[in-house]
Amino acid sequence: MGNELYIRLIETANRIKPFHDEAAASALQHSDHLTKPPGSLGKLEAIAIQLAGISGRLWPDLSRKSVIVMAGDHGVCEEGVSAFPQAVTPQMVLNFLNGGAAVNVLARQAGAEVVCVDIGVNADLAHEQLVSRKVIRGTANMAKQAAMTREEALEAILVGIEIVQEQVRRGCRLFATGEMGIGNTTASAALTTVLTGMSPEESVGRGTGINDESWANKVEVVKRAIAVNKPDASDPIDVLAKLGGAEIAGLVGVIIGAAANGCPVVIDGYISSTAALIASRIAKQSLPYMIASHLSQEQGHARLLESIGLSPMMQLEMRLGEGTGAVLCFHFIDAALHLMQEMATFESAGVSKE
Amino acid sequence: MGNELYIRLIETANRIKPFHDEAAASALQHSDHLTKPPGSLGKLEAIAIQLAGISGRLWPDLSRKSVIVMAGDHGVCEEGVSAFPQAVTPQMVLNFLNGGAAVNVLARQAGAEVVCVDIGVNADLAHEQLVSRKVIRGTANMAKQAAMTREEALEAILVGIEIVQEQVRRGCRLFATGEMGIGNTTASAALTTVLTGMSPEESVGRGTGINDESWANKVEVVKRAIAVNKPDASDPIDVLAKLGGAEIAGLVGVIIGAAANGCPVVIDGYISSTAALIASRIAKQSLPYMIASHLSQEQGHARLLESIGLSPMMQLEMRLGEGTGAVLCFHFIDAALHLMQEMATFESAGVSKE
Repeated sequence: MGNELYIRLIETANRIKPFHDEAAASALQHSDHLTKPPGSLGKLEAIAIQLAGISGRLWPDLSRKSVIVMAGDHGVCEEGVSAFPQAVTPQMVLNFLNGGAAVNVLARQAGAEVVCVDIGVNADLAHEQLVSRKVIRGTANMAKQAAMTREEALEAILVGIEIVQEQVRRGCRLFATGEMGIGNTTASAALTTVLTGMSPEESVGRGTGINDESWANKVEVVKRAIAVNKPDASDPIDVLAKLGGAEIAGLVGVIIGAAANGCPVVIDGYISSTAALIASRIAKQSLPYMIASHLSQEQGHARLLESIGLSPMMQLEMRLGEGTGAVLCFHFIDAALHLMQEMATFESAGVSKE
Repeated sequence: MGNELYIRLIETANRIKPFHDEAAASALQHSDHLTKPPGSLGKLEAIAIQLAGISGRLWPDLSRKSVIVMAGDHGVCEEGVSAFPQAVTPQMVLNFLNGGAAVNVLARQAGAEVVCVDIGVNADLAHEQLVSRKVIRGTANMAKQAAMTREEALEAILVGIEIVQEQVRRGCRLFATGEMGIGNTTASAALTTVLTGMSPEESVGRGTGINDESWANKVEVVKRAIAVNKPDASDPIDVLAKLGGAEIAGLVGVIIGAAANGCPVVIDGYISSTAALIASRIAKQSLPYMIASHLSQEQGHARLLESIGLSPMMQLEMRLGEGTGAVLCFHFIDAALHLMQEMATFESAGVSKE
């Protein structure tokens, strides 16, 4: 069965179209006619060109957008790695569903929908708006055994792909990654350590806020998890299953699914970036579809983004997750598209080019 | 007469109210009740607290906002310091007035008004929407003599103050600084060199895009301007008059005027930051009213912001000016206010605090 799931994943990855170099070149050419020195809009111009390369159009219609918030629990919380109790995961899921969390506020401002998915919460949840796709009731404690089986990891990836597919059917053309899961910065640090070669001292951060002693414990827990599970760094799904969370696997699916559907996907903070790293290892061709949003306060984030080949646009010292940074980035994407469509050209405005 | 103008400036600066520490403390307290780890929204929380400290309210109504785009020419263009001819200044002013420039597009998206001011353009300009407050027809060539007289510099500062005053009367409560002036990165580099102690090699950048040879010439021009004019670094108005531009002086007035009217003011890129530096030297009490937006590509910008005590939120590799980065920052200010007003509290959402 694991093999069948893997085949479905690879089939999806194989649907990812190569970047439209011609459309990107046309966008660059158009941009150079607009009344500004060439390249002076920096990353906004780069985004506009990337969006053209993704969509094959000079300015795609990305007005329908969603942030997919994947929620899951982590057995490693037993080891005292988080400042908050595990009960906060389901409580926050209900907060998302009731529209009261930070990501809801920012999504309303940006005109985006919040899609909240229970993919691995260790509690029974019911709500009209909840997308219930529970693969597991929390992961096992990775400090003692594999967090998930390979099948569970693959199943969670496919859930992410299916959710994106459903959103695309409903007209959504732009995605952001979000997550909730007490303990998931620990899982992300372990994944990052194995996949990038960073040391746990570099990859482990303060999460939502822990002291020096708890941080030292978190580093030890990551080391133990890696020693116990011996993940194969050359096999991203093995690493994901042994150290990851269902919500991280779900986001891997969201990213690969968005790319397979020709949609750009905005990457949030540390946990989402771990998912982006894994997605790029499974399907390198998904990378041109990714847009990095912000540099979070989690200390390993800068090097993690660098290792993927992404460069963030905002430095807001945020460390909340949920997709909050990615949703803020929607304003920049809108800006990039507006600039391409609405700016005057040197010719139309009668401005000298040199 | 210079003395009378100076007295009016100081009277305005003296109207700047001290930061409301109590309102800021209440905002922090409110923020700590919202469903997120304390401080996890980073600079968005810091902005919300700053806005409360500026306004004396938990969430001020800042829905009416303007970017003040000051335009002026620079005699130093004779020295071949820019990639564009001086004629581009009036051409771009007309582009602003016709809504076709980058700042217009971004202001429309952010729900802000563009107020375009001819404060020192070396051309006759007429347009229904233009605010004509010409103090000079371009500065003199600072490489040979003082760019402006002390009276002209003071007059331009007062124009900025008056324009803000008029906008406040019309209901505007949030400002951004913008500018247009071929040659004004050279003026800014000279001002920054004298006022911060940076070397011209550090403060001179590529502007809108010059090559190595032109850059070396620009450095020499800045050195010559300082040697010829011998500005008194302890007298910001002397430095501004001898090396500055009318549009930079106008922005000094916009910043001091905004602060005097209890309004936050968002600082754009390198040129606007030079104006912020001068405003903070004339009236230190204006500093808590400033919000830095982006780190531009101009090489001296990071150190300039640091010397003022400001920290940017975006790194978009922009180098356009006009107020483009500042206007993008309006989305973050809106976000900060929405978060304060709309997020659920731990109590209301039933989320555990620890």
